[in-house]
Parts: sequence; structure tokens; C-alpha cells
Amino acid sequence: GAAGAARGAALAAAALTALALAVAAWRRARPVREVLFFPSRPCCIEALLAEAAEPGAPARPCPCPLPSGDTALSRLVRRLLSARRSLDLCLFSFSCPQLARAVQLLHRRGVRVRLVTDAQFMGLHGSQIGRLRHAGIQVRHDQHSGYMHHKFAIVDRRMLITGSLNWTTQAIQNNRENVLVVEDAEYVKAFQDEFERIWEEYNPANYSFFPERR
Amino acid sequence: GAAGAARGAALAAAALTALALAVAAWRRARPVREVLFFPSRPCCIEALLAEAAEPGAPARPCPCPLPSGDTALSRLVRRLLSARRSLDLCLFSFSCPQLARAVQLLHRRGVRVRLVTDAQFMGLHGSQIGRLRHAGIQVRHDQHSGYMHHKFAIVDRRMLITGSLNWTTQAIQNNRENVLVVEDAEYVKAFQDEFERIWEEYNPANYSFFPERR
Repeated sequence: GAAGAARGAALAAAALTALALAVAAWRRARPVREVLFFPSRPCCIEALLAEAAEPGAPARPCPCPLPSGDTALSRLVRRLLSARRSLDLCLFSFSCPQLARAVQLLHRRGVRVRLVTDAQFMGLHGSQIGRLRHAGIQVRHDQHSGYMHHKFAIVDRRMLITGSLNWTTQAIQNNRENVLVVEDAEYVKAFQDEFERIWEEYNPANYSFFPERR
Repeated sequence: GAAGAARGAALAAAALTALALAVAAWRRARPVREVLFFPSRPCCIEALLAEAAEPGAPARPCPCPLPSGDTALSRLVRRLLSARRSLDLCLFSFSCPQLARAVQLLHRRGVRVRLVTDAQFMGLHGSQIGRLRHAGIQVRHDQHSGYMHHKFAIVDRRMLITGSLNWTTQAIQNNRENVLVVEDAEYVKAFQDEFERIWEEYNPANYSFFPERR
């Protein structure tokens, strides 16, 4: 009868809800595994930055001529902007203004950003290091010969972003590059430990004023 | 009695054998997950090369003064030498003679080696590309502006070796670098597909003799 049909519909609805909840939980629990290949099409990341700065605010269209599609760059920015507590950066060169804006935004939002970079590249034209330091972000660099050639980021001590890509617009738009996104405790721990080692070693309190010859 | 004790000992031995077999199977089945950090201490890899060239042959001590210990470089060489069928290399720069010898050895042993590299770096002083080509290894390079900046290797379409490290002695001995070793079908497939795309794109049959301006 009608009562039976209603009960059947209610049961079906409950089953669907349970299924949806299970899928959502599985999605949340499933570790991120992603590979990004470059070059990336140039794209506008204003909408991503605006949403990260003020979640839920009405979108304002950006006047720039770039498309705001799904690109390797926009995916990289999304992963970075997912940081809630900490962002540890270990970057040979960092001159891409778009990525610098994403990092600054996280810093303003209260995420603890630490940045290690290469002494020989940080002063080059276009480097974003000075700007990030001005914004109050802690930066340390080596004082040795040999390059600090890593290009990795760790989000919330949980997600590793690493590859061949230097954070320069030239590399993003023109080079063949790869970036792995790995949410795996074993790999993350190895890189987090390496970060902490370098962070301590590059502590300005340890600087010698008679550095080894380059 | 004695018969019971003998039966007990036989059972124990059988159990231990089963356990040892299970551990060996688990070891074989367990995917490789490794992170190598550089700089690496300089080391002698002659023993590794000799063992790979002639497995089981009596070790001849190398007259060189370098230690032959467990280093990031020796681990990288070991992973490469584990190739049995194929080695696909996608390397921005390749000037390290030790790694070139390992690759040549694999080629001589019948492993199918393919190498993609960057046109602007392959001709530099110290590059091993010419030597590898002379040895009969297939090499392809880009004809574009922008760098072919990848630094990865795929062993037997099964194990991905990727990171920040260019295959130069300078980088191995002096730089802060990372290399991930990942035996994971999802990551390997992404890089294998990228390799095949580049390999086809750089097919000399497609060269234009009026390349775009650099």
C-alpha cells in the first residue's frame, strides 16, 4: 500500500544518504596523489586567491585577459592554498609573482611560513625573496658553495610538493617540468627532517663572517 | 620421548622455513620507497659495476683512493643497475662519468636504454651524451626554446627515480638535492606517459630545419 511505498522511499533515501556520507569520508581519507606536468598555460589565479582570502565572498570577475581554467599552475596554487597551519618552502629560485602572492596570502592568514633558499639566486633580478621578507616571512639561505637546489614545499607537515620545477614564471610557462604531490607519511617525514636540518644549519646565529671561498 | 622431541624439532624447523619464505616474499612484494638526499660523499662504484657486469665474479679491489661505502650515489647506482629490460632517461644535463658508465653497462647487457635530454646542455663541456651516442644508445633532444628540465629515470617501466638532481658530479658532490625512488603504478604511469609523449615529439623525423627563434 501507500504506507509501504512511503517506508520503502524513506529507506532508499536513508541508504543514499549513508552512501553519500561514506563516499565523502572516503574522499577525505584518501591521500592526495597527483602529478603535474609543465609547461602550464598561463592562467589567472585571482579567483583562487580571492576565495582563499575571503571564503564564500561573491566572486568579482578579474579584468585581466588570461583564462582562469584548470591548469598545472592553478592546481599547484590550489594545493598551496590548502595550508591551514604551516608551509615549509625549500626553493632554489623563487621569482614567480603569482606564487609569491599565494605565499603572502597564507602568511597574512596566519599560516606559519618558513622559506629556505639559495644565496646565489635570491638576489637576482625578479626574485620574490625581498618582497616576502618585507611582508614578514622568515627566510634563511645557505652560506656555502654548492647550490641549495631543492624545489619542495610541505603543507601542514602532511603534504609534500616536490619536483624539477623552480618557482619562476619562465619555468612554469616554457619548460618541461614535473611536480609530484604526495600525501604519504613516510616521504613527508624524510623531507620534513631534511627541511629542519637545513633550517637549523642556515640559522643566521651560525653564520661565519669568513665563509669558505666559493 | 625422543621421537616426540624429534617431531617437535622438525615441526619447528618447518615453521621457521615457512616464516623465512614468507618474509622473503613480503620483501620482494614490498614496493621500493626511498628518498636520497645529496650532497653525497664521493665514493667508488667499481665494485657495483663489476658485480653488475659479471654477477658472482670474484671481487677485485679497486686501486682508487675513494671509499666504497653506502652513499646516496651508490644507492642511486644500485637502483639503476637493477634494470633488466628497459631504462628510460629524461635528463636536463648528464655529465657525471660514473652514472654514464652505469648506463653504458646496462646497454651492453641488453637493457633497452632511451635517453631524452636538453639541446642546450647536451653540447656543453663534460656532457656524457656524445659518449653514450657513440656507444649506440638512442638519444633524442628538444628543438624548442624552454628547457627540457626533467630529471627522471624509469627502470623496467616499474620504478620511478625523480627529483631535483641533475646527473652532474658537481651536483652530486656539492649541492643540496633530493631523489625519490617510487615503485607505484600510478606515479610510474604518469611519468612513463610523459616520457613517451616527449620521445615521440622529439623524433628526429619531426625536426623542422627552421626552428622557432630561441
